Amino acid sequence: MNDDAFDPWARRALAEVESALERWVPADAPAGLGEAMRYGVLDGGKRVRPLLVLAACEAVDGDAAAALRAAVAVELIHAYSLVHDDMPCMDDDVLRRGKPTVHVRYGQAQAMLAGDAMQALAFEILTPDGDAVAPALQARLCGLLARAAGHAGMAGGQAIDLASTGKRLDEATLSDMHQRKTGALLQASVLMGAACGAVSAHDWRALAGYGAAIGLAFQVVDDILDSTQASETLGKTAGKDADAGKPTYVTVLGVDAARRRAHALRAQAHAALARSTLAQPARLALLADRIVDRES
Amino acid sequence: MNDDAFDPWARRALAEVESALERWVPADAPAGLGEAMRYGVLDGGKRVRPLLVLAACEAVDGDAAAALRAAVAVELIHAYSLVHDDMPCMDDDVLRRGKPTVHVRYGQAQAMLAGDAMQALAFEILTPDGDAVAPALQARLCGLLARAAGHAGMAGGQAIDLASTGKRLDEATLSDMHQRKTGALLQASVLMGAACGAVSAHDWRALAGYGAAIGLAFQVVDDILDSTQASETLGKTAGKDADAGKPTYVTVLGVDAARRRAHALRAQAHAALARSTLAQPARLALLADRIVDRES
Repeated sequence: MNDDAFDPWARRALAEVESALERWVPADAPAGLGEAMRYGVLDGGKRVRPLLVLAACEAVDGDAAAALRAAVAVELIHAYSLVHDDMPCMDDDVLRRGKPTVHVRYGQAQAMLAGDAMQALAFEILTPDGDAVAPALQARLCGLLARAAGHAGMAGGQAIDLASTGKRLDEATLSDMHQRKTGALLQASVLMGAACGAVSAHDWRALAGYGAAIGLAFQVVDDILDSTQASETLGKTAGKDADAGKPTYVTVLGVDAARRRAHALRAQAHAALARSTLAQPARLALLADRIVDRES
Repeated sequence: MNDDAFDPWARRALAEVESALERWVPADAPAGLGEAMRYGVLDGGKRVRPLLVLAACEAVDGDAAAALRAAVAVELIHAYSLVHDDMPCMDDDVLRRGKPTVHVRYGQAQAMLAGDAMQALAFEILTPDGDAVAPALQARLCGLLARAAGHAGMAGGQAIDLASTGKRLDEATLSDMHQRKTGALLQASVLMGAACGAVSAHDWRALAGYGAAIGLAFQVVDDILDSTQASETLGKTAGKDADAGKPTYVTVLGVDAARRRAHALRAQAHAALARSTLAQPARLALLADRIVDRES
C-alpha cells in the first residue's frame, strides 16, 4: 500500500470517528455538561489514537463495530486528560487545538466534571446493551483501557510529570515518564484494535512492541515540535514545558539527538511489524511514519 | 433476621471491603499518586455502597468474589467524586471524614490526578485477568457502574447542583438532581450486587425500585443531618450547602416534612422488597432502616 491508498482510508476512518463522537457524546447531558464534553472532544485533534485502533483492527481482520467503539473510547480518555491537564492547578493553559480551553470557556468546575464524565462515557461506549459487541470483548477492552488510563499508565505518568518540574532527569527517567503519560494510551490503542480480532500470542507481542515504540516516538516528536514550531502551527502554547522548567527530550538530548531518537523508534516500530505474521500491517507502518514525520 | 444478626454480618462485610481496598489501591503508584489515592479512600466513610452491593449479592445468592470487586469499585467512584467535589473550584471544602481533604494535604494537581486514577482503578478492579470473574459479568458490572457515574448519573447531577446555587428549586427538580447525583450510584450498588447472581426481570425491577427509594432517602437524611448536626459529628463542614445558597430538602420542605419524606421513602423501599421473590431480602431491608435512622 502506498500513501495514495492510505489517505482515502484515513479520511474515511476519521469521518467515521467524528460521526460516532457526534452521535455518542450527548448534547443533552444536564446543565451544560454535555456542551462542555462535546467542546472538549469534537472538531479537533489529530485523532492518532482512533486511527491506531482502526488500523490495528484491520491488521487482524477484526470486528469493525467493536473497534469503532474502542476508537471513540480511547479518544475520550485522551480528550478528558487534556481538559484536566489544561486547568489552572495543572498546566494552566488557555489555548488548545486553536480554541480557548474548556475551563476558560465553561469555568473550572464544569471542566472538571466534563473530564470526569468523559472518562465514564468511554466505559459506557465500550459496554453497549444487547449483543452489538461480544461481552467478553467488552470486558477485555474495558480492562485494557482502564489500565492504560490509570495509575500505572497515563495518570501515573502525569504524577511523575508534576513531580519533575525544575528537576534534571536522565533519558531513562524521562522515557519512563512518557511511556506512562503518553505511551500507555497509544500502545493500548493498538492492542484494543488487535483485541477486536483473533491474534496469536506472537503477534500480540509484536503489536505491543510496535505500540511501545510509536508511543514514545510520538512524545519525542511532540517535544521537538514544541521547541521548533510556533503556537499558531501547533494550536497550543509552544515551548511551555521547557519554559516551566519541565524536562523534555529536547532539553535532555538536544534537538538533533532527539530527531535521531525519533527515527530509531520508527525503525523499531517497523521491525516489530516485520516480526509479526499479520496479513495487513501496512497501515500501521504508515501510521508510524506519519507520527514521526508530522509537522504539528 | 434481627439487628443482632445484622451487625456481625455488617462488621464482617466492612472488614472484607477494607482489606480489599488496602490490597487493591496501590501504595506504589508513582510520585505520591498512590499515597493520595489511598488517603482519599482508606480508613473512612460509612461504606454504605459496598454494604448495599454485598447485601444485594447475598439476596440473590450471587458470586461473592465478583461482588467484592463491585463493592470496592463503587466505593472508589464515590470516593473519587468526593476528592474532586472538595476542590476549591467546586465546594472548596477543607474537612472530610474528620481529616484535611486530599487537595489540602497533597495539593490540587495531585488531588485531581488521584480522583482521575481512582475512577480508572474502579474499572481495573472490575476486569481482573484470568477467570476470577466471568467475562460477561465483568462487562455487565462495567456498564452499570459507568452509566451511574457518568453524565446521566452522578456527574450529571453534580452539573445540575453547580447550576442550582442561589436558585429556588421545587421538590421535583431537587429530586431529579439528587436521583442523579447520589441516587444513581446507590441504586447501581444494589443492581451490581444483584447482577452477581441469577435474578428474574421481576426481581430486577423490584431491586431497582428499592435502590431508587433508598438512594433518595439517603440524600434527604443527609440534608436533615447537615442542618441539625455539628461538624464534629459529621466529620465534614455542616450547613455548608444551605449557607452557600444551595437548595436542600430542608430549605425546600422544612425539617419536619423532610423527615416525613425520608420515612415514606423507607416504606417504599420495604414495599419494593416485599413485592420481590427474593429468598433473603432481610439485610437489604435493614440497610434501608440504617440509612434512614443514621445520625451521621
